[in-house]
Amino acid sequence: MRYGIIGTGGVARTIADKLVELGHEVTLGSRSKDNEAAVAWAEQAGPNGHHGTFAEAAEFGAVVLNATPGTVALDALRAAGAERLSGKLLIDLSNPLVFSPEGELTLDPVNTDSVGERIQREFPQALVVKTLNTVTAPVMVDPSRLAGEHNMFVAGDDEGAKERTVALLGTFGWPAGSVIDLGDITGARAMEMMMPFWIRLMRAFGTAEFNYSFKHAK
Amino acid sequence: MRYGIIGTGGVARTIADKLVELGHEVTLGSRSKDNEAAVAWAEQAGPNGHHGTFAEAAEFGAVVLNATPGTVALDALRAAGAERLSGKLLIDLSNPLVFSPEGELTLDPVNTDSVGERIQREFPQALVVKTLNTVTAPVMVDPSRLAGEHNMFVAGDDEGAKERTVALLGTFGWPAGSVIDLGDITGARAMEMMMPFWIRLMRAFGTAEFNYSFKHAK
Repeated sequence: MRYGIIGTGGVARTIADKLVELGHEVTLGSRSKDNEAAVAWAEQAGPNGHHGTFAEAAEFGAVVLNATPGTVALDALRAAGAERLSGKLLIDLSNPLVFSPEGELTLDPVNTDSVGERIQREFPQALVVKTLNTVTAPVMVDPSRLAGEHNMFVAGDDEGAKERTVALLGTFGWPAGSVIDLGDITGARAMEMMMPFWIRLMRAFGTAEFNYSFKHAK
Repeated sequence: MRYGIIGTGGVARTIADKLVELGHEVTLGSRSKDNEAAVAWAEQAGPNGHHGTFAEAAEFGAVVLNATPGTVALDALRAAGAERLSGKLLIDLSNPLVFSPEGELTLDPVNTDSVGERIQREFPQALVVKTLNTVTAPVMVDPSRLAGEHNMFVAGDDEGAKERTVALLGTFGWPAGSVIDLGDITGARAMEMMMPFWIRLMRAFGTAEFNYSFKHAK
């Protein structure tokens, strides 16, 4: 299968490596065609790894993943082009983190909106699913790095798109039973608003490699 | 020990029952002295259960707990009176939930502020600790209702106040090792911003009786 990844940062390259490892073809897309990180990634990825513009990555992918920061995601996807996203599963991995000069974290958007919702509104013909934004990149593609059972979440308006996302997550190592459906794309709000908590936990634990699981009434 | 509880709702009465069961004396405080829920609670609670105004509850307590909704907490605590909170451990259990007429949940304050922080700013002589807002009332006072190990959180500026809160949580059944310190009172922001996620999970699980635990790198 062909995947287009919007973004060239750590999350983008981690997902791209995993998809290539799974036998897929991947184009990593950046604002400029000669992005150093994307060129270097494609060189070491072998024949199934490519690089190009946002538009080329979106055109290439039967499935498109947004791995840009939430604060620039809409701009990047506009550059990719609505016509290249139309009808496609568009998986949004982003968090709208804004750090002040003092290092204080806030989210934008937040509370009454989310990046996931904004993307779905701006590209109504795309099938947007929010997932994977609640764990650090190495855990996204290898949940077995953590001991025991733990959970992933999906939110999106299209049931078929969520099923396909759960299937993809399965190939990353997330058992179907570990993926919790948080409902329509407004669930992205809840998932993005986990970030301040996640960052506090990271400081408390001294590692980014952790994840949530749940205990229920006996 | 004497506890003053600000509020007479389900959370307030659940905490009050537990404190009386543990042998403490409790005054449940409401806006009006003759609040029906508070009178009824005190009648069935026995000799260690009392009711009164916000001010009487705050005056009574060596420790004060805010169990009013986050949207009215500051008003209630102003009615209690800064001089009656000064120097005391003030445990804030609230969430600033706002439901629109359509049932949509938002938080106020959010992102750049929290109820916990507002209380600490308004009452700088109180030792504010945020805790217990991340679980449903029955689980607050009986974590053994859920199978296995799961976690509680505290945030606050005063280390001694957090230690005393962890000790109180211990008498509720939370092992000290299960309580994660999220840092200063700005951690309240992270804890309150869990609510949209919590409510989505409640819908997905079909019960409010669940809680978080964490899996770490092997």
